[in-house]
Amino acid sequence: MSAIDDLIIANERYTAGLAPADLPLPRRGSLVIVTCMDLRIETGRAFGLREGDAYVLRNAGGRLAPAIPSLVVSQELLGTDALAIIHHSDCGMTTFTDEELRTRLRARGLDARRMEFGAFADIDESVREDMRAYQSCALLRQEIEVRGFVFEVETGHLREIVTG
Amino acid sequence: MSAIDDLIIANERYTAGLAPADLPLPRRGSLVIVTCMDLRIETGRAFGLREGDAYVLRNAGGRLAPAIPSLVVSQELLGTDALAIIHHSDCGMTTFTDEELRTRLRARGLDARRMEFGAFADIDESVREDMRAYQSCALLRQEIEVRGFVFEVETGHLREIVTG
Repeated sequence: MSAIDDLIIANERYTAGLAPADLPLPRRGSLVIVTCMDLRIETGRAFGLREGDAYVLRNAGGRLAPAIPSLVVSQELLGTDALAIIHHSDCGMTTFTDEELRTRLRARGLDARRMEFGAFADIDESVREDMRAYQSCALLRQEIEVRGFVFEVETGHLREIVTG
Repeated sequence: MSAIDDLIIANERYTAGLAPADLPLPRRGSLVIVTCMDLRIETGRAFGLREGDAYVLRNAGGRLAPAIPSLVVSQELLGTDALAIIHHSDCGMTTFTDEELRTRLRARGLDARRMEFGAFADIDESVREDMRAYQSCALLRQEIEVRGFVFEVETGHLREIVTG
């Protein structure tokens, strides 16, 4: 039994217990959350999300740059109108630099010269940096509510850092 | 009260009810899930995830290409060893083409010529395409378990499409 088999079994349990209200239609004017892939962030529980509540974008670090094409789709196609950028304490992205990872891959003969990983040194500063990245991106709607947070994995608490 | 204020209140409720076991440490050898940002996919409920169970990458469509840098980080830094690629029925990414979205942005004076959105026409085929993209990416570990699924938003059911 692999972790993927477990996922299939959990999904069977999910569908068995589904209520009609759990299967909403997509809607305009929703919240988007951009956060890290980290396994300690269970977005449904930590942020009180049920089906239909929010679009969720996740990548290593919860960085804005790799989320921009998806954010453009969400704003242009789905009319999303609020964004929460949520980085977190003890993030693996603070344990290396992009250049260190590229060097490590190069040692195995792998070329990642053109790849941006988005590693960073300071968690509060990375949230502010991504807020500035949002504000300087012409493709993104500037009139919507944008706020930046750090999720403290030690306590589960969301700490607000910056408002756009 | 905005949707982001609701999120903060939900987080306060979450921290109030947290048990020590809800705050695990990161671990090696975990599952990664790549799926769509769609608000009908509540990953915790639909896939039975608790804190500590899986790294989750989400973008518009659940496409592999924009997830590659994060996948490299997860494999190199965190030793993840299984991947589930999960697209879904009724996906917004089948309702336009990348070129149509670029044209629409250009009409507002916005230049997205170099931006890939990852729109696609056929949901089962997009899963197979992303499996091929995985298999042809030298930066990703080929010895791990990789499986592709479609999540049926009409029923909540996970349908397996392809095994890598």
